[in-house]
Amino acid sequence: MIKAAIIGATGYTGAELVRLLRCHPEVTLTDLTTQSYVGQSFADVYPHFQDQVTQVCCAQDLSAIAGEADVLFLALPHGLSVPWVVEARRLGKKVIDLGADFRFRQVQTYEQWYHVTHEAPELLSEAVYGLPELHRASIRQASIIGNPGCYPTASMLAMAPLLGQGLIDEGRIIIDAKSGVSGAGRKAVLGSLYAEVNENVKPYGVATHRHTPEIEQEASRLAGSDQAIKLSFTPHLMPMTRGILATVYMDLRPEADVTAAQVRERYQAFYAGETFVHVMDEGVWPQTKWSYGSNHAFIGVTVDRRTRRVIVASAIDNLIKGASGQAIQNMNLLFDLPETIGLTMSGIYP
Amino acid sequence: MIKAAIIGATGYTGAELVRLLRCHPEVTLTDLTTQSYVGQSFADVYPHFQDQVTQVCCAQDLSAIAGEADVLFLALPHGLSVPWVVEARRLGKKVIDLGADFRFRQVQTYEQWYHVTHEAPELLSEAVYGLPELHRASIRQASIIGNPGCYPTASMLAMAPLLGQGLIDEGRIIIDAKSGVSGAGRKAVLGSLYAEVNENVKPYGVATHRHTPEIEQEASRLAGSDQAIKLSFTPHLMPMTRGILATVYMDLRPEADVTAAQVRERYQAFYAGETFVHVMDEGVWPQTKWSYGSNHAFIGVTVDRRTRRVIVASAIDNLIKGASGQAIQNMNLLFDLPETIGLTMSGIYP
Amino acid sequence: MIKAAIIGATGYTGAELVRLLRCHPEVTLTDLTTQSYVGQSFADVYPHFQDQVTQVCCAQDLSAIAGEADVLFLALPHGLSVPWVVEARRLGKKVIDLGADFRFRQVQTYEQWYHVTHEAPELLSEAVYGLPELHRASIRQASIIGNPGCYPTASMLAMAPLLGQGLIDEGRIIIDAKSGVSGAGRKAVLGSLYAEVNENVKPYGVATHRHTPEIEQEASRLAGSDQAIKLSFTPHLMPMTRGILATVYMDLRPEADVTAAQVRERYQAFYAGETFVHVMDEGVWPQTKWSYGSNHAFIGVTVDRRTRRVIVASAIDNLIKGASGQAIQNMNLLFDLPETIGLTMSGIYP
Amino acid sequence: MIKAAIIGATGYTGAELVRLLRCHPEVTLTDLTTQSYVGQSFADVYPHFQDQVTQVCCAQDLSAIAGEADVLFLALPHGLSVPWVVEARRLGKKVIDLGADFRFRQVQTYEQWYHVTHEAPELLSEAVYGLPELHRASIRQASIIGNPGCYPTASMLAMAPLLGQGLIDEGRIIIDAKSGVSGAGRKAVLGSLYAEVNENVKPYGVATHRHTPEIEQEASRLAGSDQAIKLSFTPHLMPMTRGILATVYMDLRPEADVTAAQVRERYQAFYAGETFVHVMDEGVWPQTKWSYGSNHAFIGVTVDRRTRRVIVASAIDNLIKGASGQAIQNMNLLFDLPETIGLTMSGIYP
Repeated sequence: MIKAAIIGATGYTGAELVRLLRCHPEVTLTDLTTQSYVGQSFADVYPHFQDQVTQVCCAQDLSAIAGEADVLFLALPHGLSVPWVVEARRLGKKVIDLGADFRFRQVQTYEQWYHVTHEAPELLSEAVYGLPELHRASIRQASIIGNPGCYPTASMLAMAPLLGQGLIDEGRIIIDAKSGVSGAGRKAVLGSLYAEVNENVKPYGVATHRHTPEIEQEASRLAGSDQAIKLSFTPHLMPMTRGILATVYMDLRPEADVTAAQVRERYQAFYAGETFVHVMDEGVWPQTKWSYGSNHAFIGVTVDRRTRRVIVASAIDNLIKGASGQAIQNMNLLFDLPETIGLTMSGIYP
Repeated sequence: MIKAAIIGATGYTGAELVRLLRCHPEVTLTDLTTQSYVGQSFADVYPHFQDQVTQVCCAQDLSAIAGEADVLFLALPHGLSVPWVVEARRLGKKVIDLGADFRFRQVQTYEQWYHVTHEAPELLSEAVYGLPELHRASIRQASIIGNPGCYPTASMLAMAPLLGQGLIDEGRIIIDAKSGVSGAGRKAVLGSLYAEVNENVKPYGVATHRHTPEIEQEASRLAGSDQAIKLSFTPHLMPMTRGILATVYMDLRPEADVTAAQVRERYQAFYAGETFVHVMDEGVWPQTKWSYGSNHAFIGVTVDRRTRRVIVASAIDNLIKGASGQAIQNMNLLFDLPETIGLTMSGIYP
Repeated sequence: MIKAAIIGATGYTGAELVRLLRCHPEVTLTDLTTQSYVGQSFADVYPHFQDQVTQVCCAQDLSAIAGEADVLFLALPHGLSVPWVVEARRLGKKVIDLGADFRFRQVQTYEQWYHVTHEAPELLSEAVYGLPELHRASIRQASIIGNPGCYPTASMLAMAPLLGQGLIDEGRIIIDAKSGVSGAGRKAVLGSLYAEVNENVKPYGVATHRHTPEIEQEASRLAGSDQAIKLSFTPHLMPMTRGILATVYMDLRPEADVTAAQVRERYQAFYAGETFVHVMDEGVWPQTKWSYGSNHAFIGVTVDRRTRRVIVASAIDNLIKGASGQAIQNMNLLFDLPETIGLTMSGIYP
Repeated sequence: MIKAAIIGATGYTGAELVRLLRCHPEVTLTDLTTQSYVGQSFADVYPHFQDQVTQVCCAQDLSAIAGEADVLFLALPHGLSVPWVVEARRLGKKVIDLGADFRFRQVQTYEQWYHVTHEAPELLSEAVYGLPELHRASIRQASIIGNPGCYPTASMLAMAPLLGQGLIDEGRIIIDAKSGVSGAGRKAVLGSLYAEVNENVKPYGVATHRHTPEIEQEASRLAGSDQAIKLSFTPHLMPMTRGILATVYMDLRPEADVTAAQVRERYQAFYAGETFVHVMDEGVWPQTKWSYGSNHAFIGVTVDRRTRRVIVASAIDNLIKGASGQAIQNMNLLFDLPETIGLTMSGIYP
């Protein structure tokens, strides 16, 4: 059994790790750390775990916790992961960081968008960006995983099959994304109140959201272009708890002459054999609810011949494929387990 | 492996059976029958099962289906179960009816409240009311299970520890229940439209809902009273998809002198060892979201000394503990499997 | 034109007063006070008022504000109203307190349930409980209005026609109430977050909610009974922003022999001529959405002959008939205006 | 008093016309016609109008109704308006068509996208596209108004200030729109059920939605370009009842050198003096809830210098500024009333 500790277990992604790992047949949960609830039963913080999770939340005692565990899941605000990663590395343990600290290849990009100094930039080159459908082989060899952001996961799954293929104008990509409010975490702020979110849709972080450079980095890598891709990414807050839908607009290059069917075939070929990614038939568009509570992603795609534009939409559960489920998928790869173990449930519908 | 067929698989309870049984380690799904979608892929009807469920919906060919399966799950409108039960019985197969046809001991009660004639009243005495926490031993011996209604499940779990104990006035029980709209099934009716249900709460079926006699039957049985219990049951429609909360008011008898702590102890003792029923601490009241997507039930209880009244609230997922999950719990008992197998996931929160 | 100031304008009830009074043909809004946003434009705090409300939020400068206004609306947390009421009285101004400080006739009741000392108990006898349908004549003569709580408004409208009529057992009343989350105000707390409230129903304040003694006081007054009524009041939080539904259970006395039609006639007679209270036909039950954004209340009633119980449900918008709309209805009475002026809009549906 | 009849009053836009016109000080409602509810009281169809609307729904008796009314509001499915418009014209009455039949200048465009034959194409040139902020002068002179679609209203308000100004590449506009489900009307279909819409976001009508040519027509007109504008318009269904948010992406031309502040000034100048359109400050993005229940529109705009792209978002209530409110705004212009009369209420928040 793999001994797993969760650092920052009382946020929403932490709690989702607990829910999923509790039923993972190869994992034993060891420590659940917290800043706000030290000494409280985890089941008091989240009463739906009553009689199911028995741990008491503990303080973030770095060396004791890292010593005991085989793998650390870091579900911390950005900027706080480095000491854990350093210690895990020293002890030869695996570490999966669900935050942003180990997602970037260029420390400058991280520092510019996150407004903090990275304390261990030399480790960035060891970290692997943990999107298994794109980087499976590297993940298997890694010890440090930078687990992707929720928006980048949905966006990259939607774009990957066309990047670097010579079909689209990679300088003009637009991503219009819609997310449930759980992505904002369990923080008591006015903007996340029910009465403010319900019956409401709004854009936020327009042209400034931190997931932009992460998507650009990964898109550029796949595109293989010398010049880095710049794109528009606009997130919107939806009146729902879970789910992300990314709608991506990609202009066909003047010389490209493809039909919707041809583009769909490319997507189907690209994701052939993937358990968690489903390319829908022509005219069937993904719904976030299909992925609710599951690690599955759904992709719809068409070509609008009138405007010579590819339109793709992808749907995921932001807390699962966009965070905790993908982290476990990465863990399965790190430990040579079947990649889907512990993640086989379908979405909850309705 | 147990071969399970689902009769009426394209409604919400049918689809929930598919979701849960697909991951049950001891079950193979055989036929998924339907009235409306014969010949369509099940994953076309419910695209969230794309690449996960491969069956094509089939017609309700009674003898072929019953012949092949070890157990039949009937997710049909009331009045349609009898032929399936008769055939299953003839072939020595187990049958779990999620509808109302085999829940009643007195055929008159059923016929009076459901306004149909029961076509096999002689089988009612063979059927066992499938609420495992109350009737586990009988269920193990049974071949025909009348799977409880969603409201009766929530209500009985809330009342059972006090019935027949001499503490409450069993002639004055009031149940005020709140349900998500999935309980109305997948039917295109005005009253279930999003725009009509959202930001809306309403009572319905006041003093006339068909779950009333079912609750009265089971409450009377536990009370052991000669005279049948009559009670008020008022369901309300909530702006949510899943979940039932039953708030139950029970007057203390004049001679009863108990504290909230004593009543809670009684509940804890009654449900000691139950995996799926959780009695909360004083001051902690259940929330339907705790049970979302799970087979777990949560119970809060107090005694209001000012009004000499016991107030209990219980929360379940109406489609799982209130329907499909409980049906699988019953199947596990029928086949001598561990009772919780396939049902171990905690609720999805948030 | 009546000059109206709103003390505590940046909470939800304050903002609702602004919305309604802005379009009231006989009112000019003067000062909008706040604790948190002094010096900010009101339209920055609530951008939906952009270009519509031009006031800057001001501090709570008691004498200047009270001197300028003809009427003060107090939308403050309980315990903070007394200085305003004292000053208004000194200056001969009208004051409508939307909080609890002037709702009670017995200061002990207030102090016991609210855990504060009342600083001007001698003024309680001057205050009139502002439920116009029950106390219209007194309101017209008053200078201090204790504007009713949201739950008490819904509950009293549901009960009033039967109290003191000799039909029901007034010692056994049960009120099971359901409210949208805006009733909790605009406070950044975990329990009001979208992700915690959505797809969720929960009881709270069971047997301890502060609206209980307010309902008991008013019910006792109507009942005219020597012995004070004690009743059960259980509020539940709904996944919606606005609306209260109160479901009331009243046992018929042994000697009472009435039909549903007779009881409905009594309700219709009681509310004949009332613009804002609508008694529905047999079998039609109120929905909170009918009252959304309006001052209207809807009442459904039946008699369950099986259990000899009257069941009544009433629906209001908690922020309007349950707070700000009723306050304006009271203001209209205080200033001899037509009672419905400024409040004539129907509910917004869907 | 203007006598107004509503043809097709029992749909959502019809009911919204009733709600707004009932309180319009210069209007008397005459006939409310219906196909499904002839002979029923309108307040039985929509009980929130109990005691407020007394009309009985009548059949669509063309000449009697048109003869009596001064203005006809047509809230009919497309293809059904022509006889009403012909009759109104014959009698010299004004007619405001909330459907699509009189929005197009080229009958071919209408017929191609709506798949019906237009029965009176010769009248199209008499009809005026009723978006007052863009075509106020023409509306005042008109007798036939083609009331804009909900998506086109939100989209055109977002784009108008930049069209034909030489700043943007009008051949590459992308509109990503999000709508509440009331836009689908009051039709009992699976896709509009609460359980299917809640906690769900999905695109629909991708590259094929009928509002596309309407937006293209109006955008081309403002652009004044010889070549017709083609653009991408992608609607998404939101888990909410009301509200549309249109997010519009417009690429700056290579030679354009503008800042966000400059573009915002252009928007502010363009909408100066408009009561119903509000341009927000830098960094403030519109929310659909701000417009809930009101005729107000909110616009946010920025320039992303990294990608040389203007991003604009506009929010309206789809049933009011996107349908019934705008129709009344048009009526006010047709009858030389103050444009805002009957429409002054601010949005309902929260």
